[in-house]
Amino acid sequence: MSHPKPHAADVLARIQDSFNRQGMMRHLGARVLHAEHGLVKVALPYSDKVSQQQGGFHGGAMGALADIACGYAAMTVAEPGLEVTTVEYKINFLAAFQGGELQAVGRVVRAGKRLIITQGEVTHHADDGKISDCAIMQATVAPVPNKVLTT
Amino acid sequence: MSHPKPHAADVLARIQDSFNRQGMMRHLGARVLHAEHGLVKVALPYSDKVSQQQGGFHGGAMGALADIACGYAAMTVAEPGLEVTTVEYKINFLAAFQGGELQAVGRVVRAGKRLIITQGEVTHHADDGKISDCAIMQATVAPVPNKVLTT
Amino acid sequence: MSHPKPHAADVLARIQDSFNRQGMMRHLGARVLHAEHGLVKVALPYSDKVSQQQGGFHGGAMGALADIACGYAAMTVAEPGLEVTTVEYKINFLAAFQGGELQAVGRVVRAGKRLIITQGEVTHHADDGKISDCAIMQATVAPVPNKVLTT
Amino acid sequence: MSHPKPHAADVLARIQDSFNRQGMMRHLGARVLHAEHGLVKVALPYSDKVSQQQGGFHGGAMGALADIACGYAAMTVAEPGLEVTTVEYKINFLAAFQGGELQAVGRVVRAGKRLIITQGEVTHHADDGKISDCAIMQATVAPVPNKVLTT
Repeated sequence: MSHPKPHAADVLARIQDSFNRQGMMRHLGARVLHAEHGLVKVALPYSDKVSQQQGGFHGGAMGALADIACGYAAMTVAEPGLEVTTVEYKINFLAAFQGGELQAVGRVVRAGKRLIITQGEVTHHADDGKISDCAIMQATVAPVPNKVLTT
Repeated sequence: MSHPKPHAADVLARIQDSFNRQGMMRHLGARVLHAEHGLVKVALPYSDKVSQQQGGFHGGAMGALADIACGYAAMTVAEPGLEVTTVEYKINFLAAFQGGELQAVGRVVRAGKRLIITQGEVTHHADDGKISDCAIMQATVAPVPNKVLTT
Repeated sequence: MSHPKPHAADVLARIQDSFNRQGMMRHLGARVLHAEHGLVKVALPYSDKVSQQQGGFHGGAMGALADIACGYAAMTVAEPGLEVTTVEYKINFLAAFQGGELQAVGRVVRAGKRLIITQGEVTHHADDGKISDCAIMQATVAPVPNKVLTT
Repeated sequence: MSHPKPHAADVLARIQDSFNRQGMMRHLGARVLHAEHGLVKVALPYSDKVSQQQGGFHGGAMGALADIACGYAAMTVAEPGLEVTTVEYKINFLAAFQGGELQAVGRVVRAGKRLIITQGEVTHHADDGKISDCAIMQATVAPVPNKVLTT
């Protein structure tokens, strides 16, 4: 990546702008906490919009949250003007939790021109402040031109 | 699995009952289409509750839908009275789509006592009837006693 | 893929030529059984070169065999003159076996210009002819120019 | 895990003993570098027994090496007398290398009674001392009684 590293505020603005256009994330109540070159952090508060049949956070919600953390981490290292699309991801669930909030951190492990390899970690933040490991992810992300739907 | 195979109607009722308690699936508008021993089919119509930043179905929505298809397929072969929890899954996205409806089929590949291995396929069904491949999944599911949150 | 479909004999010759240059596969005793457009089948006989600590086939051997089946399946649909490299794979082990032979089938699920998505199935073929499911794989493969080592 | 933490020397001896019975690892020339509670490091020197068609380390060799690092890391936290079996793993390849040696570190992320979740990292160590990232893995491992082949 030979282009100059953008300012942190620009990185966050770029991520936030894309995030705001994600209907699903808006609907579920997710938000961007932090974005820097190669690392993005997002959060998802507990509600009945993200629960499974036993009342805990839905695995699909954890997967979606970790996926966007990884995808946006990849976007911070993609060339300016490009969006990203997730090629594939794999997630291991470590424990289930109810209430509080999930936080997911996505990190770029290798930034190739055609593919960006990332890792994600989901933690649970209970209302009493206790933090617990929740899930880990590996995701492969591809930079793509804006507004291309079919990969 | 030595217990007798349950009737198809009982299988569907058991899946539907659990599905109805999934806040996330209700909120996203998903529904169960079909359930038999070792196979479950679910659907998710397009809306702005499941879209990503380019207007297509969110990868997290595809992942959540395939996950529950696989999880419920596993539940059809688990011993009576047991729920299931997803240990891990891996999903490859094949293409992105807007509008219409996603359908996900989960199939049991191997039903062990402690772990159930499944495969999932997500297809897109356009309003004009065209069906396209969308994503494929492999998921490992564990039978668990009811109402246990922490795996 | 707009280039004309090659003859089956050409496909097999292309795969076999590449396979012969794989030191690891030669050393382990693997061989190509079949190759057609989008599908390749390979075999690995049991020996102490592929066993784990309990005497069964090593998971690493199953993974390697399924990986090359998927990789070569991808090569049959890549443009002429290109080699392939595995971006990532995920394998679920279904059961462990001793003796006999493993066979792995790789199939192309989606042939994109930049990425080829594949599925693999490993079966065990006992000396008495019994065939059993052994492992399933999803693999992402990228076409690359010949003799490029770093992806 | 309520049993007392074993001494480091005992941990290494237990891993080494199991490793020595792995025909595949002996044949490929792999060795155990280090073992402690929750972490194991193994190495694999370059040879034509582990090469692919372009002369680099075979993806199957990287996968097998990371798999045993993860598996043995899991064994260090399993109850005494138990062996382990890999349920599934997923590996992302970051770059390909020729010559030198691969090293793989496996770490336990969560030690459950029934399942142990691990992460693996493979690095390449060139003859001139340069160290490069090579692959990352997530693996699910299950403790099993000794000498049981079928999971």
